[in-house]
Amino acid sequence: MDDFMRAAIEEARQGLAEGGIPIGSVIVHRGHIIGRGHNRRVQQGSAILHGEMDAFENAGRQPASVYAESVLYTTLSPCAMCSGAILLYKIPRIIVGENRTFMGEEDLLRARGVQVDVLQDEDCIAMMREFIAARPKLWNEDIGT
Amino acid sequence: MDDFMRAAIEEARQGLAEGGIPIGSVIVHRGHIIGRGHNRRVQQGSAILHGEMDAFENAGRQPASVYAESVLYTTLSPCAMCSGAILLYKIPRIIVGENRTFMGEEDLLRARGVQVDVLQDEDCIAMMREFIAARPKLWNEDIGT
Repeated sequence: MDDFMRAAIEEARQGLAEGGIPIGSVIVHRGHIIGRGHNRRVQQGSAILHGEMDAFENAGRQPASVYAESVLYTTLSPCAMCSGAILLYKIPRIIVGENRTFMGEEDLLRARGVQVDVLQDEDCIAMMREFIAARPKLWNEDIGT
Repeated sequence: MDDFMRAAIEEARQGLAEGGIPIGSVIVHRGHIIGRGHNRRVQQGSAILHGEMDAFENAGRQPASVYAESVLYTTLSPCAMCSGAILLYKIPRIIVGENRTFMGEEDLLRARGVQVDVLQDEDCIAMMREFIAARPKLWNEDIGT
C-alpha cells in the first residue's frame, strides 16, 4: 500500500478513536498531501463532514489548476455528496480503499471521466465491517437511510 | 413568491453584505424551516460551504424520515456537490430560484426521481448577474473552473 492510502487509514482510525465513523481521506497534489480529514458527524454534529468533504475543507480554497492535478484517496467508496464534490472540482483520479461494505457513486464518476481505482484493502474492509456491526443506526444516518 | 424562497434570497443577500457569494438556501420540513444558510467561501475560507451545504449543516443531524418529508429551496441551480448532498439525503423536491446564470445538475436530480421546480425569479437572476460581472474570478473558483 502506498503512503497516501496509509495516511487515509490513519485518519479513519483517528476518527474511530474520537468515537466517530472510521472513514478517512487525503488529497494529494504533485506527490504532497494538501488536505486530509475524516468523518466528523459525531464529533462536530455535522451532516456534511464526511471524510472526503473534511479533506476538501482542510485543503482550503484552491484554484481549478490544483484540483486538476490532484488525486483523492478515501478509505471507502464515495457517497453521492462526496462524489459530487469530486465532480465539482474536477478531480481526475480517486483511489478507494474498498467498496464491499458500501458502494458509492463509482459508476457516475467513471461516466464523467474520473479514474476510479479500488484496492479492496482488507484493513479498510475489516474496519468498516466492525463499525457497521457495532453502530448500525449511526451508520445508516450517515448514508441517509 | 412564497416565504421560503424569500428566506433563501435573504440568506443570499446576507452573504453578499458579508462580502461573499450571494447564494442562499433553506430546508423546509412540514412547513417549517429546519436549516438555512448561504455560501461562505469568502467568509470562512471554505471550499465546501455552498449555500445548500450550509443549510444542510445548520439543519444538523437529521434522520432519513425528516429528509424524506423536506423541500430544499435554493436561489441558484445546485452544483454537483450540492446535488450530491440532495441525493445522499433523498430530498424529494427542490425549488430553484433560477438556472439562467448557472445550470447545475438538474438532469441528474430528475433522473434520480427528485422533483425540480425552477422559478426563473428576476431578483435571483439579477443578483447573480451583477455578482458574476463584478467578481468573475471568485465565481469561477466557486464552481471549480
